[in-house]
Formats: sequence, structure tokens, C-alpha cells
Amino acid sequence: MDSETIMRGITDRARKASCALSVLSADRKNSALEAMAKALEASRDEIKKANSIDLEEAERSGKNKAFLDRLKLDDRRVDGMISMFRDVKELDDPVGAVMEEIKRPNGLVIQKIRVPIGVIGIIYESRPNVTADCVSLCLKSGNAVILRGGSDAINSNKAVFYALKDASVKAGIDEGAFILVEDTSRQLVEAMLKASGGIDLIMPRGGESLIRSVSENSRVPVIKHYKGLCHIYVDESADLDMAEEICFNAKVQRPGVCNAMETMLVNSRIAEEFLPRIAGRLSSAGVVLKGCPETRKIVENSEEAGEKEFSTEWLDLVLSVRVVDSMEQAIEHIEKFGSHHSDAIITEDERRASEFVKRVDSSSVYVNASTRFTDGGEFGKGAEIGISTDKLHARGPMGLEELCTYKYVVRGTGQIRK
Amino acid sequence: MDSETIMRGITDRARKASCALSVLSADRKNSALEAMAKALEASRDEIKKANSIDLEEAERSGKNKAFLDRLKLDDRRVDGMISMFRDVKELDDPVGAVMEEIKRPNGLVIQKIRVPIGVIGIIYESRPNVTADCVSLCLKSGNAVILRGGSDAINSNKAVFYALKDASVKAGIDEGAFILVEDTSRQLVEAMLKASGGIDLIMPRGGESLIRSVSENSRVPVIKHYKGLCHIYVDESADLDMAEEICFNAKVQRPGVCNAMETMLVNSRIAEEFLPRIAGRLSSAGVVLKGCPETRKIVENSEEAGEKEFSTEWLDLVLSVRVVDSMEQAIEHIEKFGSHHSDAIITEDERRASEFVKRVDSSSVYVNASTRFTDGGEFGKGAEIGISTDKLHARGPMGLEELCTYKYVVRGTGQIRK
Repeated sequence: MDSETIMRGITDRARKASCALSVLSADRKNSALEAMAKALEASRDEIKKANSIDLEEAERSGKNKAFLDRLKLDDRRVDGMISMFRDVKELDDPVGAVMEEIKRPNGLVIQKIRVPIGVIGIIYESRPNVTADCVSLCLKSGNAVILRGGSDAINSNKAVFYALKDASVKAGIDEGAFILVEDTSRQLVEAMLKASGGIDLIMPRGGESLIRSVSENSRVPVIKHYKGLCHIYVDESADLDMAEEICFNAKVQRPGVCNAMETMLVNSRIAEEFLPRIAGRLSSAGVVLKGCPETRKIVENSEEAGEKEFSTEWLDLVLSVRVVDSMEQAIEHIEKFGSHHSDAIITEDERRASEFVKRVDSSSVYVNASTRFTDGGEFGKGAEIGISTDKLHARGPMGLEELCTYKYVVRGTGQIRK
Repeated sequence: MDSETIMRGITDRARKASCALSVLSADRKNSALEAMAKALEASRDEIKKANSIDLEEAERSGKNKAFLDRLKLDDRRVDGMISMFRDVKELDDPVGAVMEEIKRPNGLVIQKIRVPIGVIGIIYESRPNVTADCVSLCLKSGNAVILRGGSDAINSNKAVFYALKDASVKAGIDEGAFILVEDTSRQLVEAMLKASGGIDLIMPRGGESLIRSVSENSRVPVIKHYKGLCHIYVDESADLDMAEEICFNAKVQRPGVCNAMETMLVNSRIAEEFLPRIAGRLSSAGVVLKGCPETRKIVENSEEAGEKEFSTEWLDLVLSVRVVDSMEQAIEHIEKFGSHHSDAIITEDERRASEFVKRVDSSSVYVNASTRFTDGGEFGKGAEIGISTDKLHARGPMGLEELCTYKYVVRGTGQIRK
């Protein structure tokens, strides 16, 4: 069988399941989620054993430490998956919510009702807990999901997946609700990207090159973020103590993630006071500074920064720094180099804060807080399936509501169009 | 200059304008809309003259009556454009609305705020009033718009467009807010479809082949509907008088539009009573019936209908008819042949109505009303830029709100992530 025929078989099963899932009660979904949490607990040893096979193979082939860390499933991470299933169980069912109700003069009642999107495809790399995240969120939001993880994590993914699947089928969930594509060949990914009509939405999760390749080749709609090149602009009116705490947190607390600060913009009127303070603190935490010429006049141990550095998502203890003459120039810099993910202003001037949040075109714009809060949990969504820097459908952290679309239900008493 | 360079020049102007538009007050937008309504009035003769050139050319090249009708701008249509500008002026400004506000335990206040999408591209065929519709809705929603109409309507489009543009520039709107692509070559459309980053959303408006070609070749996100193959299912529990009125209206009142009924599904338990009644009435209005074998046993003058007929959007006084054994079979038929546009059930049984609206996966699902109501105006949106049968971002009639996205604005007092 060719890849497209195989994929058609997969999407047909998923589509059939999605019809059943879309009308499932919250109770039925929640008891399946509880059964799946218990199944992960019961399969803990099996999951860790399967994971150790992947880890050994990754070590043998010389993968780096960060890769091994993403791949690893230890007890703490299995616990995390289990409690995530219970957290998702506690969240409100998004399906069926009346988002809006319009009564028309002719007596028609038009309700805008939240419904699942249908069939979601996830293409991901080496993090096997993505398998559990996606299964739980798609089940609760009434979507079928087709999972295609990387070959490096295939044993781990299979162990997690089949523990969940067996439990869900026993709990009465359609067998096509979650499908793992075990064949990790390129041909099947290509067939997945061509499956418009069979898959409603593809979300790639992983490094920028994976995301770019999915996005450029897909005939199915894609929601994504390429990278998180986040800025903090320290305004002339900033409380400098607050600015120091926020900038330090946004860079150092967890530098490898998409909502960490990558570039700090400092207003020239406070640069001579602020830069030495924050530079000293960052340096003692091991942060390498890359500065514009003005920055380097003030911070002597700063390396040089130009267009290349300002375009780089460091994901590490490295920070680009630029002194700007005005908020205007900061906004221009963010527009030119930013990734529309998360950008902040530190200011005590409410008028300037308003201007900044109006004009910066990012999914999340902050006033006087760390960019590190862009996250489904921190936004009160309970969990997230990803973060979007696209503009259509969903922007920022995506939770259960963003895995839904809507339909209009129109009830009448015989109305006809005149 | 090659087409991509020309298109980059166009999208750069539009992007710059979209930044200005996104922060424009409602008053400024409304006074521009009023000035543009007046400009259309002042340019009425010029517009009609330009239109007559297009009409003559279309007649010379043997275009059919329906085409000439779509192309024509008479006084009534110019009046329609003028009043549309005033209608849009009266609508609430969607930009800046707080869609949701979340207060977090750590004191962060997260607002989900409606903002314009940015730069919209419209690719359309021979209807010059699309030019006016899109300019008015995009201005009010704070979006820049790039218009590429068909070569058959180029003189009409230019006359309408420049009347509007001159008035808007005099009213202080950025010159890049509306851009007409006067070069109607294929190369420029292709460059438009490749302009991801420069254009945020493309909406094709016209026949199915145009929409399919745009959708299959675009690297920019597209929202669309291919066709409207709408069904009405007359349930065994229907009020047959009501069913007759609704089915007649949905087929006959305006058969050439996307929300007209194309297939009628009739429950077998009432077929012998209902079909002769409705068939007689439809036939006397000139409707040709194409029926399944069961239908043809009851309605003798019915032609034959099979898969091909059930897949056809007639857009004319032709109706496919099928007798079904159950609501289940009706839903399966709609899933197999429908276009996810508008589908209805006629029933007095509330339980069955609920089941139908839950299970039919269409943008608009009706109970006891004509499908002809799927329309921005009829839904209370004031005006529409199109109807979506896609599932992401917007479904059904798209008005000002659907031309917007959102951003999260997060305000803190120094919060850092622990």
C-alpha cells in the first residue's frame, strides 16, 4: 500500500471517531481520563523500560545533553503525565458552550455554539510527554488526534500511547480517537501534510526547522510558532528595581524556553544608571551580554551585537542588549526583529504603557511583568497544546477552547426569507 | 521589475498603513466612511460610464446573462454601495473590545483584546461592488486591504476604487490602506499567493474554480467556501404546512445563491403525503425535480437522481430529492454530499432537532427555518465580507468581528515567574 492510501485509512478511522467524540458527555470523557491516569500508573515500569531503550540508542548515536533531557521519562515526568490527566479532567468541558445568542426581529434565535474542530494532527520530535498532553487535551475537547512523533522516541511513545489507548477503549472511547503513526518514514509525514479533508488542523511541535518544513509543505491548515524572540523594553519612566527583577527573571529563570527574554532594549536616558546594575547581576549568573555600540560604552565586558545577534533566539544564557533613544525606536526594533510571541514594557507611565500595548503586534504584550508568564497554565487555561504566533484562529497559549471551533444553530418557527 | 518585487512594494505599503489603521479612533474611521459615501454619490456618472465600457466588452466577447448581471452597476447598485458605507459606519467598532478578562492569583490582569488581523487580500471575479464591500469592512475593522479583481471588471473597479481612495486620503487615511492591483496578469496573483508575511489572510470570492485554485496554491492562509450544497431534511414529525413553505422558499426565492436548498431529503413515513404537495408547488414555479427511485415512484414527472446529482450545486431552478428511511440516513447523506454550509431539519420533535443540530457538522444548522438566512445581515452582523465553510478562525457569515484577531495584554506590578 502506498503512503497516501495508508493515511486515508488512518484519517477515515479518525473522522469516524471524531463524530462519536463530538457528542460524548463530559462524564464519559472524564471517566476515560481517570482510567487513563490509572493506566499510566500501572504501566510506569513498562514506560520507563521502553524509554531506556530510546535513551541508550540516543546516547550511542551521540545526541547532546539537551536532547537526552527532552527524551527522558523518569518517575517525576511520569507523575507529571498522570497529574496532567487529572488536571484536564477537572477543567470545564468546552464543547456545547453557548458563546453568543442573538434574537432577531423575525423571531429567529441564533446561537453560536462551541464544537470540536474534528481531527487534529500533531507532528513532534523527541519529547514523549507530548503524546500524553495531546491525547488528554484532544479527548476533553472532543477531537480525534493523529500523532506522529520522531523515530528517536518511538519506543517511549508506543509505551505511553498503548497504555492510554487500552484504557480509553475499555472506557468506551472509539478506537480511532487516538492514532499513533508508528511508521516514522518521511513518506507518511508527507501523506499527512497532504490529507486536507481528512485532517482539519496540524500542529507541529519541535525545533524551528521541523516547524518551517511542516508549514511550507502542508495542504492542511497549520497553527504554530517558529520561535520566541521576546523583548523587554525598559522605559525612561521605569521603576528600575522592578525592571532589574523582571529582566533577570525573564532571562535567567529558564533560558531554554520560548518565552524567555532574548533581547533587552533600554531607553538611553536611564541606560547609564540601569545597565551597569543589571549587567553585573546577569554576569554573575553566567549570562553573556551582546551589546550595541552604546551598550558597550557602558558595559565594558559586553560582546558585539548587530543584526545577526538581534535576530537570534539564544535559548541559552546569552542576551542581546540595545540602547534606544525612544519608545518609538523600541517598537520599531520589536517589529523588525521580533517573533510576535511575547514582548514587555517596564514603565510607570500609564499613557506610554497603553501606547506600547496598542502598537506592539505580538500574541502577548506585557506591562511590568516577566514574559515568562506566556503559558496556558499561567494564563488560567489549565493546560496548553501549544503557543501560536499566527494571527488566525488562535493567538498565544492554546488550551481546550482553542481546540474548538463553533457552529451557528438557528431555531425558528417556520421563518422564510422575504 | 518582476512580479514578486512589485508585490513586495505593495505589501510594504499595506503593512505600514495597517499599523496606522490599527490605532485609528472610531470617529476618524466613521468620518472617512461618510466622506467615501459622498464620493460615490459624486462619482456616480463616472462609475456608470466606466461600467458601460466593461459591459460592452463583455457583451462583445459573448458573456452570458448571469455574468453581465453580476458585472452591471446601475443606479440601484450604486445606491446600494452608498447605503452600505453608511450602514458600516453605524456598526460598533470591533477594535479594542475586551473579549475576556482574567485576574490571576498572583495579581496579573490578563485581557484578551480584539485587534485587526493586519493586511487582507481579496481575489475576486466580475462583481465590482465587492470592491466597495471590502474597502468599507476592512477600514472599519482596522485592516489594510489589497484588492485584485478580474480583468473583465477593471474599468468599473478603478472608477469605484479611486473615488473611494481619493476621499479616504483627504479624510486622513494612509494611502496604503486600500490598494488596487491594476495589473490583472496571472503573475501578480501568483506573487500575491506567495506573499506570506506580507499578507495575513486571503479571501477568494467567485466561482468554485477560482476558489479552488487560490486555495491550492496559496502560501498565505485562506478562508473560503467552495460551494453551498444545502439540504433540508423533512422529518416524519414535521408540520407539513411549515415544511412546504420553508422548502419552497429555500429553493425558489433566489435559486442562484449559496444558501439556497439544492437537495431535499424526505422521511419515508411522510413521503407519500408530502412529496406530491411540494412537487406540485415547485413544478408550477418551474423547478425541475431530480429524484431517487423512491421519489420517482411518488412523483412521476421527476427525472433521475444519483450520486452525480446529489453532488451538484444547481444554483438554478433544479432540485435533487431523496426519500430516506430515518434521520440517521439523512445525516449520513448530508455528511457525504454536503458542503458544510447550511443544512436544516423540519421537525416538531425537540429531541430529534437537538440530535440533528449536534451531529450535522455545518457552519449553520437550522431547525424549522429556511437556509436562506445564512447571511451577515440576517445574522445581525450588519454586513459580511464572505461566508466560511472552513473550520478555523471563522465559520459561517463573516462580519467585522471575524476580520479581527486578538492579543493578550498582561498588566502586572513586577510579577516574576517562580
